Formats: sequence, C-alpha cells, structure tokens
Amino acid sequence: MENFIYDNQTKIIFGKDTELKIGQLIKPIGKKILVHYGGGSIKKSGLYERIIKSLEKEKLEIFELGGVKPNPRLSLVKDGINLCRKESIDFILAVGGGSVIDSAKAIGIGAKYDGDVWDFFEGKTQITGTIPLGVILTIPAAGSESSTGTVVTKEDGWYKRSAGSLLIRPKFAVMNPELTYTLPNYQTACGATDMISHVLERYFTNVPNVEFTDELCEGTIRTIIKHSKILMKEPKNYASRAEIMWAGSIAHNGLLGTGRIEDWASHSIEHELSAVYDIAHGAGLAIIFPNWMKYVYKHDINRFVRFANKVFNVEIDFKNLERTAKEGIKKLKLYFNEIGLPTSLSEAKIDGKQLEAMSKKATEKGTVGNFVKLHEEDVLNIYKLSL
Amino acid sequence: MENFIYDNQTKIIFGKDTELKIGQLIKPIGKKILVHYGGGSIKKSGLYERIIKSLEKEKLEIFELGGVKPNPRLSLVKDGINLCRKESIDFILAVGGGSVIDSAKAIGIGAKYDGDVWDFFEGKTQITGTIPLGVILTIPAAGSESSTGTVVTKEDGWYKRSAGSLLIRPKFAVMNPELTYTLPNYQTACGATDMISHVLERYFTNVPNVEFTDELCEGTIRTIIKHSKILMKEPKNYASRAEIMWAGSIAHNGLLGTGRIEDWASHSIEHELSAVYDIAHGAGLAIIFPNWMKYVYKHDINRFVRFANKVFNVEIDFKNLERTAKEGIKKLKLYFNEIGLPTSLSEAKIDGKQLEAMSKKATEKGTVGNFVKLHEEDVLNIYKLSL
Repeated sequence: MENFIYDNQTKIIFGKDTELKIGQLIKPIGKKILVHYGGGSIKKSGLYERIIKSLEKEKLEIFELGGVKPNPRLSLVKDGINLCRKESIDFILAVGGGSVIDSAKAIGIGAKYDGDVWDFFEGKTQITGTIPLGVILTIPAAGSESSTGTVVTKEDGWYKRSAGSLLIRPKFAVMNPELTYTLPNYQTACGATDMISHVLERYFTNVPNVEFTDELCEGTIRTIIKHSKILMKEPKNYASRAEIMWAGSIAHNGLLGTGRIEDWASHSIEHELSAVYDIAHGAGLAIIFPNWMKYVYKHDINRFVRFANKVFNVEIDFKNLERTAKEGIKKLKLYFNEIGLPTSLSEAKIDGKQLEAMSKKATEKGTVGNFVKLHEEDVLNIYKLSL
Repeated sequence: MENFIYDNQTKIIFGKDTELKIGQLIKPIGKKILVHYGGGSIKKSGLYERIIKSLEKEKLEIFELGGVKPNPRLSLVKDGINLCRKESIDFILAVGGGSVIDSAKAIGIGAKYDGDVWDFFEGKTQITGTIPLGVILTIPAAGSESSTGTVVTKEDGWYKRSAGSLLIRPKFAVMNPELTYTLPNYQTACGATDMISHVLERYFTNVPNVEFTDELCEGTIRTIIKHSKILMKEPKNYASRAEIMWAGSIAHNGLLGTGRIEDWASHSIEHELSAVYDIAHGAGLAIIFPNWMKYVYKHDINRFVRFANKVFNVEIDFKNLERTAKEGIKKLKLYFNEIGLPTSLSEAKIDGKQLEAMSKKATEKGTVGNFVKLHEEDVLNIYKLSL
C-alpha cells in the first residue's frame, strides 16, 4: 500500500425530499447565489421552482445561468465567470449532473483567478481559490458531486481537459434518488458505465497489498451492475435508484483509490472521442474500456482473473488463467450491451478517420495511464481494436 | 434505504513516517498543545521524542497529560479539563488508541462546558463546542480517530457511557502502520474484534434495500479477518498492519452505517462487562457478539444466512437455512478463538455473580438494540448464554 492522504469534506444529504431545505443549507455560506443548470428539464419537472422557493424563503439573492451541455463548454464557463465577477456572486449552486457540476467548478476557480481559466486545464497554474459550491444532483454518473476534479471542453480545437484540487470539492451534495426517476434508460446506462469506469481506473494498479480497497471496489461494481440492470426495467425503483446514486458517489470520492496508484488511461482515450464526436462520456467508456482491457491484460493476468472471478463470478480455470481473464472482459462487454450501450465505434456510427489525430492529441503531454504506460501508437491500437 | 447525512471531515494522513510532520499539521490550528497519552510505551518506542521534536520545531507550546488507562476514566478527564482551562489549551493531540482519543474528546468538550462533563454521557445536555483535536493512532481498534463518539467510565458506580456529536470528530488522524508493529497479539486480536463488531452493529439491521453498504460491510469484515490471522504469525507484516489499520477506521467512520438503522445492543451489553470487570473491550465483544447472535438470529434468518455465506463462505443449505445461519455464528466464534480471544465468560474467568445487576444497569434507560429490542431479561439471557 502507498502512503496517502484522504480528505473529503463534502457533506452528503441523501434521501427523499432533501432538496426542500436547500435554502437553509446555503444560508450560512452565501448570500448571492448563482443557480447553474443544463437544459429545461429542471423547469419542466418542478425542481427549479422548489429550489427557487426555498432560496427565496431564506431571502437569498438569486442569479441564474442555464444552458450547460454534456461535455461542458469553455465558452459558457467564461460567461459564468463574467457574471460572477459582475454580480459579486459568493456561492454557486449546481443543479444537474457531472457536466453542470464541472462547469460550476470551472466558473468558481475562474472567477478567483486573474488569468485565463483554461490555464488550469493546461496545467499552467495551480488552483488557489474558488467561489464555494454546492450541488443538487439529478444525474448520478460522474461522481463530481464530491470529487476534486472538473472536466471542460474548449471548442477551439475540441480539447477536453481536466483540472483538480481539494479546494473544489463541493461543500455539500444533496442527493434525492427520486429526482432521477425520469432519466431515460440510455442516460442511466451511461451513468452506470461512468461509475464502473471510475472504479476500474483505480482497480487496475500495480501497487501490491491493496486488498481492502480491492474488496470495496469489487463490491461497488457488483452493486452498480446489479441495480443498473433492474433500472432498465423499473426506472422508478427507489431502492435501485438509491443504491446506484450512493455507489456512484463513493466510486469517485477518493476512498477507492486510497493507497493505490490509479490508471486513467481509458478516460484519457475516451475524452478524445467525446471531444471530437460529442458522444456521451459513458457510451464512449463502454467502447474504450473493454478494448483497453484486451490490449493490456497480459501485463497482469492474475488481476484480470481476480476481476473476472470477484465481479462476474467467473469460475477460475486454473489450467488456463488467460481464458478466465478474457472471460471477465467478455462479461463486462456483454453487460454494457445488455444495458443498451455500444461497445464498438461502428455501433456508435463513428468511423476511423480521426483516430490518428486523436491518438496524437491524447498523448501530446506524454504517455497515458499507469497500469501500463501507453504511447501514441498504443492508443491508436486501442482505437483500432474498438472499431 | 433510510435518508441520511454523511459528513466526515477528518483528514487521514496514512503511511510510513507520517508522524514526522505533526508540528506542521497542527501549526495552522493551535498554539498551546496538550499532548495526551497512555502509559510509557510511546516514550520507550521513541515516538514521544519524535513528536515533541516536531512540535518544538514549529515553536508550539507543549503541555502533557499521560496515564490514560483502557476504559478511560472520568477522573483523568476532569484533570485534563482543569489543565486545559488553566493553561488556555487550544489544541489536543491524542497519541494512542481509542481510550486516549476518547479521553481527549471528553476533555475537549468538558473544557468548553460550564457544567459537569458527565452530563454529556448522561444525555442531560448536547455537545455544542470542543477544543479541536488531532490524533496519532498507535492502536487500531476503536475507530475513534474519525468517529463522532467517545466512551468514558465513571469510577463511582463503574458506569461506562458514550456521548457523541459531529463536532468531536478529530481534525486529522495520522496513521502509520509501523507504529503498531509492537502491539502484542492479544491487543491486535482485541482490536480486530472491536473493528468487526463496529461493522456487525451496522450490518444487522431491519432496513431493507441496503445492499451497497452490505457489500462494503462484508468486504471490510473479510479483510479484517484475513489480515488479523496473518498478524498473529507475522506482527511486523506492513501490508497486513496497513490493511487492518485502514479497514478499522472505515469500519467506524460512519460510511458503513449510511442509510441503515444501526443496532449497538452488543456494545451496550459489553460495556457493562468491561466497566465491572475491566476486561478489554475487544475480548468482551468476542464473548458477547456470538451469544447475541445465537439469541436473536431467528428474528431474520436470511440475514444470518447471507452473513455466513458472504463473510465465511459457508455453502448455503437451502433445505435448512437455519443450519447455515448457525454455521456462520459458529465460524465467527471459531475465528475469535483462533486469534486467541475468549468466547465465554468462564474462559475470561468471570463468574455469574454480577449478571443480574449488569442487566439492570444496561437497560436502565430502556431497551438496548434496534435489530431486536432487548429488555433486562433478554440481556440477562445473553449473559447467561455467555457463561
């Protein structure tokens, strides 16, 4: 096990009707509130109205900025920064999923920085402050509600890049599983895949003696697989919505990576895909992850055997461990298909024309991944395996 | 799943040599530091000197109070409170295990309260403030390093009682597994039992649809069982010391109880035992827990079947679920014996003379437990089963 620091200060308020007290939650922290959200769904569902009512009750001053798209855009982040500066916003409430939260995080750090907010995503400077942030989660997937990261896409050149700091963890996350009842199956499936991928990026490590977190990782993945399947048939199953929502948060709150060196190659490879083709991040991961596995499993067959056995209950063939390892990868792919996601680029109607350029971009700052360090050529091979 | 709030702000600094930066850690929080500890072992081991050196390097003013005993005493807590008031202590550093940390927590809340600190333990008043607290953990067991609770024993009448609040979670916990190399096997075994019991108190619940935390609970217990057995033979196995130390913290940091209604009957029943006979808490739990299980398993046989199967890999006998349930309880008892703990009162050389009085005291504020609500008579029956 590696030395580690674990410091997660996000307060989780979980369960039915928890959004009704949002005004009381924010009152001790901020007075001028930017409500940041995506499309019109929160207005149609009545959630927007409930939030505004609760904020007004506490006499908080409300500003708003909607229009966040999946793979959130730098241009809207800059609009948000300008608005925060102009109105001296002192708290940002993100209402939505990972894209909205990531956009809000970027606005928060940009507003406290004199230079160009993209500097953080280019690694040119460190995050030193932010407008404090809270979340009402409506799409469980990204885990951004209690994570230290943000991912934003710069339209000029379609760069999708991440930035991170302990400082940008949300102060709180309000998580009411009922708010996710209306998610279409495709979005639920993409969310589950994103969560599982967050665990897998931590699970595949070269650090020995991390069995406790191995156990937690495996239990988290089993939970997500089981309950995402139930939700495909019963989208209003509260129990399954709740299990998925909480597991998705734990999947990315830092706990499962404690003591481990994490990988993140598949995320880097996928980011190019969703930046260029604007495919949902979860769908992109369903395509990339099994193919990344096929490409690297020989690096540590025993770990893939463990994965196959513990996650998918594949019987271990001690005479042919490689077969067991490959069976686990196959099961993961089948699961993604079962919940309606593509597992190849062709299924997602993406041709091979941009693969060279994407491989180059994915590796322009060096290799990606830690389990196996992948060069431009490796990334291209994984894209080609995914065709 | 029940609604819940999860809010754990303890920063974990985990790994080798982490205690060497204790001065830097405390400097932004306090200036006048009370170093609180137990016997002389931290002086013999050299830990004390390393701590003092680091505090002095940051020019912090140092006070000290040693002498904390297992099942920490109210009288020493009161000494600590007086010292803190007299010297205007603004930070308490607990160096030790659960007893030292609990004693430090009680000192912290007592120093900020005008009345008798025992009021908190009698439930007469709520905790509203504390001197901030940090921990260097040397005995992994109680989980107090990131928990919200404290347990103190009042010598007058030998009452062992708990108090709790989010406010008393330590600011940080420094956890270096190497500091636990010298623990005798008996203490390691007691620690493992305490950890497992913390999980079991959460595991046995009547709340349905808590599968994610079921999975996390089971993985945590499996980890503790496996690595505590290794440590009986290899006390300086870093990997196992690290797994146990981190699992013990997660066992009691609140995560595994999210969405559940917890039980805590066995702890209440054990507290009387260690208050009266001054037996180690872990050893008391090894006696009480399997007997509590025997007494209540019929209340929900399926949950005990799951426990047997998932934790001890007992094959499920579908024609006789009760047999499977009982096999799991037997396996737990055998495990406690294997790591050298008593599983009956007689093994611990405790006779039955005080059982009536203890049962009365354990239930003087009403029933104990939530999985099954136990009255005085039930508690007596469990003590008798334990003879």
